[in-house]
Amino acid sequence: MKPCRIAILGSTGSIGLNTLKVVDQHPHRFKVVALSAYNNVGLLERQIKKYRPAHVAIGPEGFIYLKSRGIKGFKLYSIGDCAQMASLKEVDVVVLAMSGAGALMPFLAAVRAGKTVAPANKEALVIAGDLIMGEARRCGAKIIPIDSEQSAIFQCVDGQPSKPVLVHLTASGGPLRGVKPGDFKRMTPKEILRHPRWKMGPKITVDSATLMNKGFEVIEAKHLFGLDHRQIKVLVHPEAIIHSMVEFADGSLLAQLGVTDMRLPIQYALTYPDRLGTGLARLDLAELGALHFEEPDLKNFPSLGLAFEAARLGGTIPAVLNAADEEAVAAFLKGRVGFLSIYKIVEKVVLRHKIVKKPSLEAVLQADQWARQEAKNILEKLCH
Amino acid sequence: MKPCRIAILGSTGSIGLNTLKVVDQHPHRFKVVALSAYNNVGLLERQIKKYRPAHVAIGPEGFIYLKSRGIKGFKLYSIGDCAQMASLKEVDVVVLAMSGAGALMPFLAAVRAGKTVAPANKEALVIAGDLIMGEARRCGAKIIPIDSEQSAIFQCVDGQPSKPVLVHLTASGGPLRGVKPGDFKRMTPKEILRHPRWKMGPKITVDSATLMNKGFEVIEAKHLFGLDHRQIKVLVHPEAIIHSMVEFADGSLLAQLGVTDMRLPIQYALTYPDRLGTGLARLDLAELGALHFEEPDLKNFPSLGLAFEAARLGGTIPAVLNAADEEAVAAFLKGRVGFLSIYKIVEKVVLRHKIVKKPSLEAVLQADQWARQEAKNILEKLCH
Repeated sequence: MKPCRIAILGSTGSIGLNTLKVVDQHPHRFKVVALSAYNNVGLLERQIKKYRPAHVAIGPEGFIYLKSRGIKGFKLYSIGDCAQMASLKEVDVVVLAMSGAGALMPFLAAVRAGKTVAPANKEALVIAGDLIMGEARRCGAKIIPIDSEQSAIFQCVDGQPSKPVLVHLTASGGPLRGVKPGDFKRMTPKEILRHPRWKMGPKITVDSATLMNKGFEVIEAKHLFGLDHRQIKVLVHPEAIIHSMVEFADGSLLAQLGVTDMRLPIQYALTYPDRLGTGLARLDLAELGALHFEEPDLKNFPSLGLAFEAARLGGTIPAVLNAADEEAVAAFLKGRVGFLSIYKIVEKVVLRHKIVKKPSLEAVLQADQWARQEAKNILEKLCH
Repeated sequence: MKPCRIAILGSTGSIGLNTLKVVDQHPHRFKVVALSAYNNVGLLERQIKKYRPAHVAIGPEGFIYLKSRGIKGFKLYSIGDCAQMASLKEVDVVVLAMSGAGALMPFLAAVRAGKTVAPANKEALVIAGDLIMGEARRCGAKIIPIDSEQSAIFQCVDGQPSKPVLVHLTASGGPLRGVKPGDFKRMTPKEILRHPRWKMGPKITVDSATLMNKGFEVIEAKHLFGLDHRQIKVLVHPEAIIHSMVEFADGSLLAQLGVTDMRLPIQYALTYPDRLGTGLARLDLAELGALHFEEPDLKNFPSLGLAFEAARLGGTIPAVLNAADEEAVAAFLKGRVGFLSIYKIVEKVVLRHKIVKKPSLEAVLQADQWARQEAKNILEKLCH
């Protein structure tokens, strides 16, 4: 069996590291041919020495340093050329492990080159889902999501003769589940960053607190599985053992379950359609004893409702939602605004936006820029 | 679309009635071409008038009565000729809704005729699973189980590119879950027959109390899905919402969930691969709040362990297990022996049996007869 040749964009982040653990678990199955990182040049250098990729991309600060190190055997790209790396002939699977809108161009390049793309990145599909899915269909690219909820849905519908009528995205409820809504306004970044279930970066943890992260997943699921926004429900399930469910016309549901370890969906995407051992502990439901479920609290977590509205409207609105959220969360993390202001800023920007339906890539990027500027303007006023 | 032509063997029992409800829900989709009942000739007569089947079989007592009624338009068979009815050219799907070993010959006839067979009956697969599955493979017959657990497994593996490494059969725990083991010996048939989850006949409810019913399902699953007995686990799940689960090599599980209504798996089997609306209430996990899980108590429910042992040994042992259990449960229901004697009798008969490996149909039937006589002998001694 020829090894699967993979490009990992964002190899020094949490998803990138877990992807390399999967590679380590099955060294004969994979060949790492490309790596990229934005900042962490020290770790990237160690990865280069260990995995010997033929192609490497790094952000501006690390570029000169890496060049000066005199390591041989790979071609060095600037981070802006990740799209070129994602479409290399010698790449079979592109793992999009970086966060942020920077994943958009590599994602588009990879689907246009007919690659199998394994996205952990949410932003690209949120802001340009129609474009990406259209190009994927046109070019015969396969998209196997790594996000645990989207992977669960993929696993539940794969091979099924019927399409689901509903998708139930499960949500741990985030770090504020169980906190009195009256206390939300006093929440500091430090308190928010103690997430009970998944260890993630600060931006996504704040999004998990507002439930905006789940909202982004709603938009993502809409694109990945060709659904109407009314076909997507969110169900709070604090144990995060059922990673999501699909419901068929007859009321029967299929659910995907597993331990909460990102190596599971990553390995699934990399070895699909095969399934290999993971070396991880197995799920023991009897030991767990119980799984719990509740409706999401849309009143105290209005971001989720706003994201559903963005999913319904489509066009440039999701791009605006994403960009405004990024600015507002960054301001919260810097202590510039309080927790409740995140939603207020995002809502204000979305309401001010003039939607472009069926936007081109340029229109999407323009909307993104506009929303960031608009959010910054609002922040300026708020902080003075 | 041509209607699916179905034969319902055991149309006056619980599964038969639910099958006819599914037919009523989608009248243009189905044509009832054959019905059979053992005893309830009054209800069968009403079904004949409503569904106008061309073929009807009835037990000896009803035969003369039905003949005397002068209803026209169908051919009347004795109950022993159900196998003939199950292999009629004009039948597409055979629903095996009768209980007991009497389903064996119709089951074999139906698979030999290449029909789609939807068994709710457990006994046939328990006593002659190897024979039935072998003939089904040879003749290209499709078996889509109706039992909610087996249907769940079928739905989870259907279309999946990988075979599961484990199957988790869920069990409500039966009417004795939560009862102190010290009180088991005092349990009366009346107390046992109050089953918390599924409304079923008295024999199967007692089997559910001893967990022998789950044991039969272990043997059934082994045959239906080509598993080794070590690949089957039992998990107590009192809400009976997860109908069963399968686990893949990577530790990922797929589960099938739904409300506890037999019309769901029946309709699935009848309309496969399509899924249609059922008119039933949908599952609402948030309203339920929680699902619970625990290991089965093998010490106080030794029947389950005995059934696993029978699954391991195979040959004529499962037939002996089934026959001895039928006699012992009948004696318990008549008040002849106490609850704990059921297991003791069955174990004694199984231990005395000389196993025939790879038995012919005749050897299986002989073992069945031998076990019944042996159980009766033990009962004679016990009750004097």
